[in-house]
Amino acid sequence: MMFKTNVGATESEDSIAYLRPETAQGIFTNFKNVVDSFHPNLPFGIAQQGKAFRNEIAPRDFVFRSREFEQMEIEYFVNPENWQEAFDELLKATHEFLEELGLNPENIHELDVPAEDRAHYSKKTIDIEYDYPIGKEELMGIAYRTDFDLMNIQRVSGKSMEYTIKGTNKKFVPHVIEPSFGVERALMAVLSSAYREDEQNGGKRVYLALPEHLAPVKFAVSPLLKNKPELVEKAREIYAKLAKKNPGRVMWDDNGNIGKRYRRQDEIGTPHCVVIDFQTLEDNTVTHA
Amino acid sequence: MMFKTNVGATESEDSIAYLRPETAQGIFTNFKNVVDSFHPNLPFGIAQQGKAFRNEIAPRDFVFRSREFEQMEIEYFVNPENWQEAFDELLKATHEFLEELGLNPENIHELDVPAEDRAHYSKKTIDIEYDYPIGKEELMGIAYRTDFDLMNIQRVSGKSMEYTIKGTNKKFVPHVIEPSFGVERALMAVLSSAYREDEQNGGKRVYLALPEHLAPVKFAVSPLLKNKPELVEKAREIYAKLAKKNPGRVMWDDNGNIGKRYRRQDEIGTPHCVVIDFQTLEDNTVTHA
Repeated sequence: MMFKTNVGATESEDSIAYLRPETAQGIFTNFKNVVDSFHPNLPFGIAQQGKAFRNEIAPRDFVFRSREFEQMEIEYFVNPENWQEAFDELLKATHEFLEELGLNPENIHELDVPAEDRAHYSKKTIDIEYDYPIGKEELMGIAYRTDFDLMNIQRVSGKSMEYTIKGTNKKFVPHVIEPSFGVERALMAVLSSAYREDEQNGGKRVYLALPEHLAPVKFAVSPLLKNKPELVEKAREIYAKLAKKNPGRVMWDDNGNIGKRYRRQDEIGTPHCVVIDFQTLEDNTVTHA
Repeated sequence: MMFKTNVGATESEDSIAYLRPETAQGIFTNFKNVVDSFHPNLPFGIAQQGKAFRNEIAPRDFVFRSREFEQMEIEYFVNPENWQEAFDELLKATHEFLEELGLNPENIHELDVPAEDRAHYSKKTIDIEYDYPIGKEELMGIAYRTDFDLMNIQRVSGKSMEYTIKGTNKKFVPHVIEPSFGVERALMAVLSSAYREDEQNGGKRVYLALPEHLAPVKFAVSPLLKNKPELVEKAREIYAKLAKKNPGRVMWDDNGNIGKRYRRQDEIGTPHCVVIDFQTLEDNTVTHA
């Protein structure tokens, strides 16, 4: 169910509008523009990320199914003769992407959606399912949408959506393979896969084993003791150098004792903790954990 | 006027919701969370970019005033004793940012908004106005919002929004300076400032004098003649090298004669056109315009 609203000063049948339930359609309406300005060779893709809205009767499972969510979609335009090849290529790239997110391939499953469960326009759909803590659930999907969308636009607009292969007279309406991701579903998979608990020094430790490129904070910099001006000064110097090279990715942390600081950085998945101690002042080395 | 919709299965007074008319409020509701997890020193800022929706009676001037727009806002939290200093600093940074967008400082004007025209919670607002082709119009604004928003949240939530200065007992609710940008208004300023027409070889030339860092395409690569395989092969090689270093920022252009290709790249503001000719094959130099 879509969210309904009214545009303009008066509420009437004429003023009804709906919030978009997927980002894809904006791409299809721009297809002709992109072809005419960039003259791309087939196959080529147009990607978009943005909010989508679905008035779910029962939103549930934290951010997994919510009424407002962030979607990432690629519409990949192909010669219909080669759709299978492009589909396989995108499926392979998807698996590589999920592995880069740190997800264990053993927890990733392909579901070849049977005809009766596919959208009416789709000739093939593979759902990627993931073993979440709440059970196996859909993480993303790749659908072969044929020429359904471009043909609709051609019919309604009266404009040709045909693509001409350069240097030939060969013309056709391209077909579409669509990988579609929910950002929050990917985030849930990443967080639940990275979440770990263990025992350290007799106490429970919680940490996030994030791939380094996903960690929001790359370095935490800390003087061993915050009441020793010479340590603080040296730590500030190192902090400033790192912060300049990694803007927004370096955290100054002098709160509580050093054990507490490590635990705090563990919890947010910081890969590098740099501690400045008296040894640093002597030989310019730091403790790195 | 805000856009109204209904959440859930039934339309009733209880289910009414509104699309957000600004991004700011999401930041204020997250303020406490950010303070508790990052322990930042004052002053510090939280920035957000996203869609905002206003049901304008008369949307107009292309993307300048539209019902759905992209907003960038910073809520900058300060000690109320230092608000003026922080305000001046952000105003200076704003001018530097606008200059980096390629806007001529002569076309940028500050309007110190008089008390009767300011929002009721603002103790000072400076609007930055720009000389658009349609006349002088607001481009962005900086408002000193005092503690109005955080005090509201404290009142409604019953939670303290106080910030304690580290190592002291000094507590207070921070005050806020808010620079607020409309992305489309900045885009309109950039495009209209970069748009140029001149005469070249007896014909009218249209070009975009974009600062290099804003140009969507950095390099166009072109074989002088597309029916000479040795030129095409060499051009493909150079294209591949540049594309690897500048993903998504390099265009292959062999459409039409070389003059047409230059004009097309001029129109989209491409700073570097690389043409591979017979000289290239001899001495590995390229024609660069």
